[in-house]
Amino acid sequence: MIHRERLHRPGYVYPTEEWRLVEKRFYPSYLGQTETFFAAANGYLGIRGAFEEGRPVQQNGTFVNGLYESWPITYAEAAYGFAKTGQTIVNVPDSKIITLYVDDEPFFLPTANLLSFERSLDMRAGTLDREVLWETPAGKQVSIKSRRLVSYEHRHLAAMEYEVTLLNEEAPVVISSEIVNQENIQSHGGDPRKAKSFAGKILQAKERFEKGLRIGFGYSTENSGMTLGCGIDHVVETECTYEVKRQSAEDSGKVVFSALAKPGIPFRIIKYMTYHSSRSASPRELCERSERTLDRAVQQGFPSLLESQRSYLNDFWKRSDILIAGEPAVQQAIRFNLFQVFQATVRTEGAGIPAKGLTGMGYEGHYFWDTEIYVFPFLIYTAPRIARNLLKFRHSMLDKARQRAAEVNQKGALFPWRTINGEEASAYYAAGTAQYHINADIMYALKKYVEVTADEEFLWNEGAEMLVETARLWLDLGFFSDLKSGKFCIAGVTGPDEYNTVVNNNVYTNLMARENLWYAAATVRRLHDEHPGRFTVLVDRTGVDLAEVDAWKRAADLMYLPYDEKLGILLQDDDFLERKPWDFENTPPEKYPLLLHYHPLVIYRHNVIKQADVILAMFLLGHEMTADQKKRNFDYYDPLTTGDSSLSACIQGIMAFEIGYLEKAREYTRYAALMDLADVAGNAADGCHIASMGGTWMTVVYGVAGLRDVDGRICFCPKPPKRIERIRFPLSSRGRIIIVDISRDAVIYSLEEGEDLTIWHIGQEVRLALNAPVTIELTHETCMDVAESR
Amino acid sequence: MIHRERLHRPGYVYPTEEWRLVEKRFYPSYLGQTETFFAAANGYLGIRGAFEEGRPVQQNGTFVNGLYESWPITYAEAAYGFAKTGQTIVNVPDSKIITLYVDDEPFFLPTANLLSFERSLDMRAGTLDREVLWETPAGKQVSIKSRRLVSYEHRHLAAMEYEVTLLNEEAPVVISSEIVNQENIQSHGGDPRKAKSFAGKILQAKERFEKGLRIGFGYSTENSGMTLGCGIDHVVETECTYEVKRQSAEDSGKVVFSALAKPGIPFRIIKYMTYHSSRSASPRELCERSERTLDRAVQQGFPSLLESQRSYLNDFWKRSDILIAGEPAVQQAIRFNLFQVFQATVRTEGAGIPAKGLTGMGYEGHYFWDTEIYVFPFLIYTAPRIARNLLKFRHSMLDKARQRAAEVNQKGALFPWRTINGEEASAYYAAGTAQYHINADIMYALKKYVEVTADEEFLWNEGAEMLVETARLWLDLGFFSDLKSGKFCIAGVTGPDEYNTVVNNNVYTNLMARENLWYAAATVRRLHDEHPGRFTVLVDRTGVDLAEVDAWKRAADLMYLPYDEKLGILLQDDDFLERKPWDFENTPPEKYPLLLHYHPLVIYRHNVIKQADVILAMFLLGHEMTADQKKRNFDYYDPLTTGDSSLSACIQGIMAFEIGYLEKAREYTRYAALMDLADVAGNAADGCHIASMGGTWMTVVYGVAGLRDVDGRICFCPKPPKRIERIRFPLSSRGRIIIVDISRDAVIYSLEEGEDLTIWHIGQEVRLALNAPVTIELTHETCMDVAESR
Repeated sequence: MIHRERLHRPGYVYPTEEWRLVEKRFYPSYLGQTETFFAAANGYLGIRGAFEEGRPVQQNGTFVNGLYESWPITYAEAAYGFAKTGQTIVNVPDSKIITLYVDDEPFFLPTANLLSFERSLDMRAGTLDREVLWETPAGKQVSIKSRRLVSYEHRHLAAMEYEVTLLNEEAPVVISSEIVNQENIQSHGGDPRKAKSFAGKILQAKERFEKGLRIGFGYSTENSGMTLGCGIDHVVETECTYEVKRQSAEDSGKVVFSALAKPGIPFRIIKYMTYHSSRSASPRELCERSERTLDRAVQQGFPSLLESQRSYLNDFWKRSDILIAGEPAVQQAIRFNLFQVFQATVRTEGAGIPAKGLTGMGYEGHYFWDTEIYVFPFLIYTAPRIARNLLKFRHSMLDKARQRAAEVNQKGALFPWRTINGEEASAYYAAGTAQYHINADIMYALKKYVEVTADEEFLWNEGAEMLVETARLWLDLGFFSDLKSGKFCIAGVTGPDEYNTVVNNNVYTNLMARENLWYAAATVRRLHDEHPGRFTVLVDRTGVDLAEVDAWKRAADLMYLPYDEKLGILLQDDDFLERKPWDFENTPPEKYPLLLHYHPLVIYRHNVIKQADVILAMFLLGHEMTADQKKRNFDYYDPLTTGDSSLSACIQGIMAFEIGYLEKAREYTRYAALMDLADVAGNAADGCHIASMGGTWMTVVYGVAGLRDVDGRICFCPKPPKRIERIRFPLSSRGRIIIVDISRDAVIYSLEEGEDLTIWHIGQEVRLALNAPVTIELTHETCMDVAESR
Repeated sequence: MIHRERLHRPGYVYPTEEWRLVEKRFYPSYLGQTETFFAAANGYLGIRGAFEEGRPVQQNGTFVNGLYESWPITYAEAAYGFAKTGQTIVNVPDSKIITLYVDDEPFFLPTANLLSFERSLDMRAGTLDREVLWETPAGKQVSIKSRRLVSYEHRHLAAMEYEVTLLNEEAPVVISSEIVNQENIQSHGGDPRKAKSFAGKILQAKERFEKGLRIGFGYSTENSGMTLGCGIDHVVETECTYEVKRQSAEDSGKVVFSALAKPGIPFRIIKYMTYHSSRSASPRELCERSERTLDRAVQQGFPSLLESQRSYLNDFWKRSDILIAGEPAVQQAIRFNLFQVFQATVRTEGAGIPAKGLTGMGYEGHYFWDTEIYVFPFLIYTAPRIARNLLKFRHSMLDKARQRAAEVNQKGALFPWRTINGEEASAYYAAGTAQYHINADIMYALKKYVEVTADEEFLWNEGAEMLVETARLWLDLGFFSDLKSGKFCIAGVTGPDEYNTVVNNNVYTNLMARENLWYAAATVRRLHDEHPGRFTVLVDRTGVDLAEVDAWKRAADLMYLPYDEKLGILLQDDDFLERKPWDFENTPPEKYPLLLHYHPLVIYRHNVIKQADVILAMFLLGHEMTADQKKRNFDYYDPLTTGDSSLSACIQGIMAFEIGYLEKAREYTRYAALMDLADVAGNAADGCHIASMGGTWMTVVYGVAGLRDVDGRICFCPKPPKRIERIRFPLSSRGRIIIVDISRDAVIYSLEEGEDLTIWHIGQEVRLALNAPVTIELTHETCMDVAESR
């Protein structure tokens, strides 16, 4: 399927740079998108890239991961077991507001006479910078420089530098630095991918603190009972004379600086902003924490924060960068994607990764399977500590998953399709609760994590318990069907593809459930045999016994996989061929994504796919299929796949690489890489597609370099695209850093850290030792071994 | 499956009478149910059987058919094409309130010392009567008699007689007669079968009229823009001296009568109540109409109203009564059911029949397929004029059905699954919009209506246009499937059984769609051949051409009907056998209906049925199957059918008769007959199950008497249940009235009105002429020809 690029960013506004995202002019057409792209975040706190002045703005937003308001989901026609409580990430008080008046003339971008303008997100510095030269109506030239960061080191802290210099004449300057509690008024206009809107303010101020140049509040939400401390403080650096006035209202406040600015003498303010959220602490307590954070920030100073940003990013790029020579736009996009994944995860502690990171309210700040299937490979190979935290977070919600299973009349545990607090928040079961595969997805990520990191401690302590409960769910959900010769069948579930819902024997689900059951059985048996003491603990926690384990294994061994003999393909589900063919030829581009133009029943009735499903299974469990089978599956399913989900292109790209459809692979990789920057899905304004960003990394590592890592065994089969001169990336595994460096004619594998190890290159063993790179020539045959026949 | 009787009405409170429903004591345990049972209605206006005093009350309610308030349906996760506007019947101002004070002591049933109490619904008089003898705390004995009716003759009119007599001492008596605009505060607590609740009052008073003993208002709704005029007037008949005071507030009012009641001298008030609703007239105009109705009522007087009630009912019972000798409880239940169908339909003009008639707010006053499939047979054979009105009403909504088809991306017209104003109001597509079979159900009713009445005028004028548009929908919805050897398949629909939703090739839907397509093709072709002028009109209205007609016929001829060779049964849908067996053995009675105890996904995943689906098709289109096939189908599906829908028992009963499972047939008939009076479904308090009531008539006529009327040919195959001595009922067809009189050993067919005709008795021609009854002996073999083997 042909995807659509929507944002044709003009090069004179957005020149391509490898380490920065730059905007050379004030260009309000892309306001929503740039608010997303220029977001600063650290996985705990995120501030959208809206202007300091507060206007113009499309979707302002500041978010604290996991800080949500709940609301009763009302159904016009309810049914038993439907999710009851909605959860929506809160747009917290906006603390970045700084407005400027020169000669009492407000600085307002749309009407200002701008002599120059540049905004840039620096992906090595970790700052969002803006430099503007403004000529006031009275002809005074004003240089306005601002720099914004959300600290990676101090996750509760953000900071800004704001510097105003009169260039040609003196003038009275007023700078108002604010903290504004906002109304949540975003309306979603029927697009299910957007967030719920609330009337009025979600956060109610309960406490306040202020002194000197500092103002802050303690808030709480009405329904979810969460609390937030939030405050701002300021340091002024100038030789101009100035006065300060502090004004605070019920739940908002400002500090107003009035100076007489002399030509050439900068008036500079450093603004520190802090956010502390909690499920239990009082607003008062959070005010106190906020004050302590501000104290420390003022003491530490802005330069030190800048330094620590660079230091974090140096470390990040060392572990994670993908060098791509020869395609600067792709290089920039891939770095941007990795940078946003970094911003979404670096300080995620005790929380998940929202589908949009902290760059927008899309999908309400919920955690989905995106994390485990799309972001985990990147994290496991570059930042395993974060992957571990995320699995630990899932484990912390296991009790709620047990409750949820009971609510839907099942044994074991069912992780929620979408959630913040561990409760199911999906109000549309067909493309929500029915996606039971999330259980297997999380266990797949657990297995991969353990294999790549060798962190068996985690497996025994937390993993085994989750494996027991997820396996229980599968065994209870399915049944041995007489009609399928006693095979284990799973009816009434939805696979990854949300255009074919509530089906029987979705092959992705069955394959992944089988893996889940097998891994659970093997793990519990190993624990029983190798760590009897720990096995006892597991029995205490779960009541598991070995007969149960045998039953899991039996169900897995007998798992039914629908297959069509005539076409020689795995069937996406029992009935996939029974549906009506979609008339692709007469579906104009503006009718995509189909979900915004056709009733679900119309879509479900047809032979049309939203996103990789069988093709995703082919990637995740490819070792269970032959190359021929994969090619036949791809040839059949790829043309039916609209790619209406951003989770699709990267996976289609990887499999196109494997099968050898290199032109197609390149195209999908490009779409995945540009999903946000080219607004392929048309909703970049709602936030970054973090899963696709993680998927971009996969298209390079699993796609171009052909990494396969079944049972922890690292194998490559590089297929460098023609136009790219060189691709180089590191992988961390078990204390080692491996560098893969692919050029058109050769690949160099080297070990940068850690003990010797063996990897594989297209079936050939490669022994790696420190400082002993191995170069292997790439021939045309190995790399482009399948004709571009399609 | 075993059904459940919930209401074990004690015989000393509710003695069985053939023509009345009687309550001998004040028995508040059954408050909600008796409010339903004692409802008085005429198809336009309905008043629940709550007490005059207004208290105690469970669900008060007065309804005007088609008077609804609309509200935007909000979805926590919306999707394209979901129904946007909810519609809920309005609980209109309560005009029946009359409160009584004796010696300033309020008459309040729960605390009153009742020397006697009787309430009765008289099914020949058309009134609800109450007689109470109350001893006040001061020892005064007060006779209170009231009588209530909703006029069949004047559909905008209701009336009450309220008579108070002091028996042993004199006392000051105060009677307050009120009209009260109510708040809609019913809460449905998650039961999808109940109605939406609104905060506050739906009706806003815009106009008022008052003079003498008369008060009234003109109201309007906020969203739907509908209007209502409503007023009360009074006539006092007494020899006591009394005073009157009229009090009116913003939207409610009362007339207070203060008398000094002498022993033995009755104080009697006649109260007239009127309701006029409209979609276009102003509140002022409706006030004027209300005044005119009150003027006429006062002039005509109460006795005349009583007389016309009896006259309407005489006529009704003549055309409709089912005499059952030997089982008084069943006799009473069947008469009650027919009476409530009468009350739901007699003056239904320009509206449909709500699922609960006008006896409760259940299902929000919506019109479903219930009318055409469950109530139509009764209406066609006893009151064809009403059937015609209802089809005309469907035709009046054809344009909205065309719009709805477009909204769900289809050609032709799609009638809404549930509606008041013609727009789809189902907010749960899986058991709503997906039930496309409603198109075919309506067309099936049209065909039957035309065949039994010979009203071809209607077929040419309105029927043909509906046939064209419904046939278009089917042709567009389905497709010729290569996988099924080019057969015509219909994917992604829900059949009658709401426990198996969004399936492929639901056999009921395919069979009924085939009938729809065939009938549409035949009708349009006949019109073209026989009435070229009228055909031109149809072409003008629809653009139909004969090539299209051929395409319908081709789709119908090639319709795919899923069949399992091994079991020899029609499959309810392609995947019916693929689902997990339901563990009936371990499902305790209190877990029924399943929909209130299991998540829809759990139900959908299992081999379990809510209501007759294949079995319904076997009844409606039984001539297309062999007896063997029907038996095999019944044997397979009947044990899987929970009967969680009230639409099931009657159909299961009819087919059990046909197949010869007479004990089972009797049991189902009993459940259908007692669905309301024994509260089989547990929700009688929400209103009568009008469809099941119509179904009861069918269990006698199609079940016991074995009527089959394919293509208008009337055949009987009587199978009298052992315990019943005699069953006798009339049928109207083409100007004739046929009487069928079945006893244990013989059946007598006679013609009471109209020209000679031929009917069939078990394949044998029977020629009927006036005053020439034909007696046929029933042998054990013909009537109980299949062993009770199950």
